[in-house]
Amino acid sequence: MNDIRVLGDWGTTRLRLWAMAHCEVIARCEGPGMAAVTAPPEEALRESVRSLLGERRTPSLALCGMAGARGGLREAGYRETPVTIAEWAREPLRFTLDGMAVAIAAGVAARSPDREEVMRGEETQVFGAMRLDQALMQGPNLFVLPGTHCKWVRCDDGRIVDFVTGFTGELFALLRGSTLLAAGEDDSAMVDEEGFAAGVAQGRREPAVLTALFQARSRQLRAGKSPAWARAWLSGLLIARETSEVEARFTLPRSVVVIGESALSQRYAQVLGQNDIAARHVDAEAATLAGLRVIDVEA
Amino acid sequence: MNDIRVLGDWGTTRLRLWAMAHCEVIARCEGPGMAAVTAPPEEALRESVRSLLGERRTPSLALCGMAGARGGLREAGYRETPVTIAEWAREPLRFTLDGMAVAIAAGVAARSPDREEVMRGEETQVFGAMRLDQALMQGPNLFVLPGTHCKWVRCDDGRIVDFVTGFTGELFALLRGSTLLAAGEDDSAMVDEEGFAAGVAQGRREPAVLTALFQARSRQLRAGKSPAWARAWLSGLLIARETSEVEARFTLPRSVVVIGESALSQRYAQVLGQNDIAARHVDAEAATLAGLRVIDVEA
Repeated sequence: MNDIRVLGDWGTTRLRLWAMAHCEVIARCEGPGMAAVTAPPEEALRESVRSLLGERRTPSLALCGMAGARGGLREAGYRETPVTIAEWAREPLRFTLDGMAVAIAAGVAARSPDREEVMRGEETQVFGAMRLDQALMQGPNLFVLPGTHCKWVRCDDGRIVDFVTGFTGELFALLRGSTLLAAGEDDSAMVDEEGFAAGVAQGRREPAVLTALFQARSRQLRAGKSPAWARAWLSGLLIARETSEVEARFTLPRSVVVIGESALSQRYAQVLGQNDIAARHVDAEAATLAGLRVIDVEA
Repeated sequence: MNDIRVLGDWGTTRLRLWAMAHCEVIARCEGPGMAAVTAPPEEALRESVRSLLGERRTPSLALCGMAGARGGLREAGYRETPVTIAEWAREPLRFTLDGMAVAIAAGVAARSPDREEVMRGEETQVFGAMRLDQALMQGPNLFVLPGTHCKWVRCDDGRIVDFVTGFTGELFALLRGSTLLAAGEDDSAMVDEEGFAAGVAQGRREPAVLTALFQARSRQLRAGKSPAWARAWLSGLLIARETSEVEARFTLPRSVVVIGESALSQRYAQVLGQNDIAARHVDAEAATLAGLRVIDVEA
């Protein structure tokens, strides 16, 4: 045994593991996401831990994300809102694997008469962001976590109170493969700024989504727009509409905390800025690690 | 030569040909849609005409739909709105193929400062519906043509004045293959009526689309709903939202003409009915044939 602890975020698209010693990351590795695991998940996890640590051993492993989903490593249940960090971190799902004490964090769920909301992994980042900046534990705060299924998380005095899921990231990925953009090759990683701005303007002008999407195609046919323009236009339209929909549900505060990868977070910040809302960025990895550290691996 | 004329609708997903003698359909056949054609389109057309007519010959072939698109059989351009049936039918794109006089109908386009709209094939059905019932040539009328790209077509005194495209059909198809419904097998052709009604209610209650879609998954996870329920819920949500978006653009009249396949048309009629709008059905094939008949194949 030694002082190395392992923390992990096992999401749908990838497994990330960090080896920690005295609160410092000393090694990291990536493995297959839960959706790509074909062997029993335990086997994939063993292999990733081995590639992280080599001959070394660890006494403990704390995981969040889809590891705890039904059909994941082991089902870890949900904590219902409102929930504090202490209530969430206490009593994760615990078991032993090859002598390691493994803990899988609960997800968080919100229920109302006409909505069911669930998340796994994002709560770790929200609570982690609060630990990185204690000011975020006071009063009302809104967090946005852009991604495949974007979460907008409303907190109050350190509690997660409610949240809503934007299907925007997955929808954008589906639309990229559709006939809307079929005319052209996806040959540029650059975002067409004029296209993005036009999409945001469209999304802010009127609440149309279903009757707006086809414009990504018709403007290529009739207004000489490029596939890159259309792709950026779609991205702008969807983020602007998502933001407006959230605004109709949660009154948006003057400042929103954005947790995520920098490029996509920047796009959300741009749209929020047009609504006169400041975006404050928190690094996704730092937030994940800060959240994972509080999980009680040992009972 | 003989009295057989051939009419055809060559869309993205299929080619339909009808052999007509004295205004009666005497034979019909289906061939590959424009998206599935790998050989030169002329070759696919020749083969379908051969399978329709056998040893017989026809002097003329009138086509509508994607046959006239860029990258189709021959590009046939668009007529701009407002457009009457006479303006549309006059001077189609004409050429000769194996001794047949071929005419491809123009599509119709609508341009405004912030929208570009195009259609190919639906205008044939709208004009055809007017020929089947002359009353539809008087005053304002709204037509809806449900499908992959649903068209809502506003007419006035026999002119197509404006229209809007709902991306609803293609979006529904994309979402069926997404993680929203990934939990279950698509093993039933029956629509879950309670799911459809719940989706329509959701779509009528609030303008959310992007922040509503994930409910199709979370209600399976947390409210015991089946994949069939979720599928029907999505269908109801999307049709209700599309209808509301169109309502915000075109004031919906007391009665709407629905042209299309019966099952999907029935769903649109159901949603329109909840808005106290009567739906009047026109058979899609009858409308297509009535529209194709007026195309001037010979100059």
